[in-house]
This record gives sequence, structure tokens and C-alpha cells, in this order.
Amino acid sequence: MDIQDLTKLLHTQNSSKIVMMVADGIGGLPLEPGGKTELETAQTPNLDQLAQKGVSGLSIPVAPGITPGSGPGHLALFGYDPIQHPIGRGALEATGVGLELGNNDVAIRCNFCTLDSKRNILDRRAGRIASETSFKIVKRLQEIKIPGITIFVEPVKEHRFVVLFRGDGLGGDVDDTDPQQIGVPPLETKAHNECSKKTAAVAAQFIQQAEALLKDEEQANGLTMRGFSKRPNLPSYEEAYGLRAAAIAVYPMYKGLAQLAGMKIVGNAKTLEEQVAVLKDVWNDFDFFFLHFKYTDSTGEDGNFAEKVKRIEEFDQIIPQVSALSPDCLIITGDHSTPAYLKQHSWHPVPTLLVSDCCRTDRCKTFGENEALMGGLGQFKAKYLMALALANAGRLGKYGA
Amino acid sequence: MDIQDLTKLLHTQNSSKIVMMVADGIGGLPLEPGGKTELETAQTPNLDQLAQKGVSGLSIPVAPGITPGSGPGHLALFGYDPIQHPIGRGALEATGVGLELGNNDVAIRCNFCTLDSKRNILDRRAGRIASETSFKIVKRLQEIKIPGITIFVEPVKEHRFVVLFRGDGLGGDVDDTDPQQIGVPPLETKAHNECSKKTAAVAAQFIQQAEALLKDEEQANGLTMRGFSKRPNLPSYEEAYGLRAAAIAVYPMYKGLAQLAGMKIVGNAKTLEEQVAVLKDVWNDFDFFFLHFKYTDSTGEDGNFAEKVKRIEEFDQIIPQVSALSPDCLIITGDHSTPAYLKQHSWHPVPTLLVSDCCRTDRCKTFGENEALMGGLGQFKAKYLMALALANAGRLGKYGA
Repeated sequence: MDIQDLTKLLHTQNSSKIVMMVADGIGGLPLEPGGKTELETAQTPNLDQLAQKGVSGLSIPVAPGITPGSGPGHLALFGYDPIQHPIGRGALEATGVGLELGNNDVAIRCNFCTLDSKRNILDRRAGRIASETSFKIVKRLQEIKIPGITIFVEPVKEHRFVVLFRGDGLGGDVDDTDPQQIGVPPLETKAHNECSKKTAAVAAQFIQQAEALLKDEEQANGLTMRGFSKRPNLPSYEEAYGLRAAAIAVYPMYKGLAQLAGMKIVGNAKTLEEQVAVLKDVWNDFDFFFLHFKYTDSTGEDGNFAEKVKRIEEFDQIIPQVSALSPDCLIITGDHSTPAYLKQHSWHPVPTLLVSDCCRTDRCKTFGENEALMGGLGQFKAKYLMALALANAGRLGKYGA
Repeated sequence: MDIQDLTKLLHTQNSSKIVMMVADGIGGLPLEPGGKTELETAQTPNLDQLAQKGVSGLSIPVAPGITPGSGPGHLALFGYDPIQHPIGRGALEATGVGLELGNNDVAIRCNFCTLDSKRNILDRRAGRIASETSFKIVKRLQEIKIPGITIFVEPVKEHRFVVLFRGDGLGGDVDDTDPQQIGVPPLETKAHNECSKKTAAVAAQFIQQAEALLKDEEQANGLTMRGFSKRPNLPSYEEAYGLRAAAIAVYPMYKGLAQLAGMKIVGNAKTLEEQVAVLKDVWNDFDFFFLHFKYTDSTGEDGNFAEKVKRIEEFDQIIPQVSALSPDCLIITGDHSTPAYLKQHSWHPVPTLLVSDCCRTDRCKTFGENEALMGGLGQFKAKYLMALALANAGRLGKYGA
């Protein structure tokens, strides 16, 4: 029995409000031994005040040592065991370009490639063609028609794009067609079970039509398909927690992940200020609010320590407006760490903060990696955070008599 | 899916070096309430310096409250869940006397016993005969021949010895023949499945021949067999982590455990100084180095607090030579605690230290049980240590996109 099976049984209703603010990749590292992390360096008077009022800790998204992608990182925050609920590559990419994945859909991550006259692969990435070129070619593929199937084709970046097939009886267990080597043709679309045979046949037709359309292209005259995947079967926030949940995000990937959890995407904010305005607007219509802030991650990935510090300070400045709404439970966390020192996601536990009127305050005076080590939440798996949120909001009944 | 399933999927290659130094039983207890443990008492300037540079914590070998033997303790450090991967008594004993367990082998832990004229057991331990006597009798059993089977018989201590059968089609599911009471004969060798019937027959023949050879012995004129076991089926370090691993140990048991994990036993060191010399010698040939130090455990088991303190100081003195090799990730830990106060292994979490250039330093200034409580590794299951080692050495890819 996982934690979500317990929340499913035990959740109750009241009028409380829970806000989860995710500063993507907020955890970091010092640039020099003995130095301070980005978060420890930033001036964060508002977060520090919350740390004094609330309870701190460090969340582990997947397991010690394991660096999560954005998918598993967010699923864990939303309370889904990220190992029990893998998200297929295709589903995540489709989500990332804003395609809403339904139960009749199969999503596939595709790469343009270069084929020679014998249909052998010369370049698995079609020379990493420029995005502008790729976007035009993708547009042509949108003309492909297959009876009984609705097809979506969307560009991602450079040689990468997404295909989504919508129709009855499409299974998701089809092998990648990328042979992972050059000098050989793309692999056939091979189904792994009976209910995926239709998908394999549809994909083969798509490839055939695509190659006909692309035959005069110099670089992108072929394609390979990877990560065939259905919508992951996640219990919704309503089922798992009894919460009407809203997501206030700027980037499609995070809107998509929230949608997979059954959250409603609200507003069309482009800035943090606008996100908070949306939060105020919809305050009466939902019980749970996921607010995603991207730039603590992107500055970390750029290796820009100073800019990440600034983005954390920007995030801090918005806190009073959120606190003014008096959420019954306010959570500040991240989906993983992204130290500027490493220029990538990392495995380091994520500083996390929970404030409620019954959260058992600890001795933490500031919000930061080292301070959180003496926090009352300890080091805990991120998937438990939603149960803690519900408990602190008075929304979980007793287990057993 | 266990942590090792993730490392199997995610490990990558680079030229980094990982050193794991295991001070057996290093964790301890104060002799008096409010006192210091052995490790806290010892002068350990080098370990303290590492504690300042690195990240500390306390590892839990099996589960809170569970005292591990050397087998589970080491398996956990090597990243194998010690509950999912039990090691049979026979396999562990064989390993302990230096027998290399292959896939065609079955190992059995045996006890000499005293039988009366009706073949009923008078003494289950043959009067705990002296090791010297027992060793001579074991030598006579080495004469036993069974067609198609290679037989190894090795003494352990007092009435205890090990038998290993090597041959095709030998299963490991055979019941113990020790009836656990006197006044009855040893039990028949009974196979639990089809593929173990040959083993049971071979064991019965061995017992028959042994009793014939021993019929004139006063005390050790019979034997019982326990813990029939095959080599445990562990993924190797190569498979699980992509690491070429070397073990530098003095005692057969630890060499054997490392061998079960697919490590190569290198050198023939008898002292810690010699172990470090071997480490330097083979530095370029491996990615991972397990260095085992026994005397922190044996002095603990002797209840000799002062001597354990000295042994910890001896261990500390060797650190600069290891650091001078500039490992990308250096780990100091133990397989369990062995407090002199208890004169035995214990369940107490084990002080653990990890140093790398991206390990997120904490506030620990010394290496010790209490100091480690505010360490960045927190209290964690020992089986996660290898994932942390790989991550800190840049050898683990991202989980999910």
C-alpha cells in the first residue's frame, strides 16, 4: 500500500486552501568548498520569515543519488511514486509542446534523420537541422491523413518533433524504430502485444507517407520514432485527495504534467506577478493551487549562479502576496536541485518548507539547504508531501481506530 | 524496482575513481552515560578534515533496530538490499574460509557431533572439541571421494567445518540434518525440490563415508549439516554500476563477500600500510576500490574500548595516503557498529562520510556519531550509498525526462 492508497481512503472535506509553490531546481551547491549555495546566498527575508513560522526539511524526489527529470520530479511532488508511475518519453514530449493527452492517444517522440538511396541512415539527427527549417518540414507532415485516426504533429527543437495518434484501440507497446546506429535502415514498427498492432500499422503508414513527402529534402528525408506511450494512468487529485486543483504555470511541460494529475490549467500568465494575479482570481474556485516558477532551474542549467540568486530573490518578493491570501497550508519546494556549479539537474535533496497553524515549528531561522538539515520534516521522500499538506489542512482522517 | 534496478539503467562511464574504506564495526557507544564513543574519543585529525570537506551522515545497514552480520552489512554497503539477497549460512562460511563459490557449487556448514551405538546424538557439538583436534579430523575427511563430485572440506573453529560439493546439477534446497535435540539420530538429507535430489544423495554418501572414517573417534564420530546453499545470485558491480571493482582485504570472509559482488581480489596485503600500497599499485586498473579494515570490529567484540580507539587512530593515519591519490569520490563507513560496551555487533546507525567536489558540504566539523546527526546525508539506508557514490562521481544519468 502506497501513501496515495492511504490518502485515497482517509481524505475528508473542509474549506481549507493549500498552495504549493514550486521553484524549479531551487536546490543548489556552493561554487567553492565551504561557500554558500544559491539559496543561502540570496536575500530572502520573506522565505526566512516563513522558515521561522513553519517547518523545514529536505525532500528526495526519487531516491538518494538519483537525479530526476522534470516529469518524475513533479509527479513525486504531486504524491505519485515516480518509480511506480513512469512517464513515457512520447507522453512527456507531447505534454511539453502543449498537446493534451487523452485516453485514446499514443504519443511518440520523433527525430528527423538523413537516409541514403538505399534507405540506410546516414545521420540519425539530420545534421541537427535548425529549428526554423525543422518547423517548416513539420508543417508539411501535418498534411498526412490516415483513415480513423486523428494525427497531431508538433515541432520540439532542431531535429526533434512529436507525433500523436488519436483513435480507438491504439496500444502503446511499440518498439523504437531508431536502430541507434548509422549504415542501416530504420527498424520496422514492431508491436509488443496484440492491442498495439494497430498502432504499429498506423505508425508504419505515417512513416511511408512522411518519406514520400520528404523525399526531396537534403537532410531531413526520413524519421525515426521513440518512446511510444499512452497517457500514464494516474489517479486524479480529486480521487486521490478530494481536492479541486488548479495549476498556474507558464511553460507547457508543467501545465501538461499538472493536467495528467487531473488539475485544471487556469489563466494565461507569462510572469510571476501575473501568476499571482491568477491565483487571486481563482482563489474561491479551488482547494489546491500549484504555482510553478521556471527560472530558478533555467539559470541553474545555464551555470549562472548570480542570476539564479536573483531569480530566487524575485520568487521571495512574491511571497507576501501569497501569504496575504492566508492559505491554510503553504508549501515552498522544488522538483529537484539544479546547482549552477553542475549546470544540470542533480540528486541533491531539495529545501522544502511547510507552513500551517499546526505544523510543529522547528529551530530553522532561514530557508536554505544547511538550515533545513535541522528542520522538523527531516529528509523525506517527496511523494509524502501531499499527505503532509492534507494533514496540515485538516483534510485527512485517522488511520484505524 | 529497487535502487540497484535504477543504477543498472542509469549508470554511465567516465574516468572517475571511487574509494570505499570500510572500518568494520566503527560505530560505538560511550562506556558511561554522557560519555564519548570510541570514534569520538579517538584523535582523528584526518577524518575530521574530511568531515569538514565532505558530507556526513549515519547509515542503517538493514533496518532500524536490526543488528547485521558481516554478510548483510557488507552486501548493503555494496548496494544490494540485504533482505532481498540473503546469503546462505553455508555460502557465508565457505566464503569465510577462503573457498571461492562457483555456480556449480553447494556449500554446507557442518558440526561434528557425538553419536551413541544406536546412532543417536549424545552431544550436538562433540564436546566443543579443540580446534587443533578438529583440524586433524577434518583433514581425514578430505579423503572422501564421490564419483563426479569435487569435494572441499575445510575447518572453521572447534567443532565447526565447511563442506563444499562441486558438480553438475546440484541444487541448494536441502533441509538441515541437525535435529536440534539429543537422543535422536541426525535427520536424513531431504531435498526440497527435484533439482536438489542429487545434492541430498551426495550429502548422504558423504555422511556415510565420514561416519566410517570417524567410527573410532571418541567425541567427533558423527556430523550434522546445516545451511545448504548455492552462490547467491547477485548482479556484479560491472552489471549494476558499470564499475571495474577491486577489493583490498586481509581476511578471507571480506574477500569472499567482495567476490560474490564480482570484485577482483587484488594483492596479498597483511597490514593497512600494505593495503594502501596495493591500492596505489592497482590505481590505474580499476574504477572502484573497496578497502576493508578489520580491527575496529575485533577490538569492539573483545570489549576493549581503549584498543578500539587506537585502531581508529591507526585507520585515521592512513587517510592522507589515500587522499593523495585524489579519488573523485571517497567514502568512509562501516558495515555496522560494534560498541566495546556491548562486545558484539549492534543495530546503531554507522557514521559515514562522503567527499567529492559536488557533495554539498554540511556543518559537521568532526567525524563522529553525534556530529554526523547534523550531516547532509541524514540517516539513510546503507544500500543507497553506491548510488550516491556513482552520482558524486558523475556516473549516473538522469531518471526520466
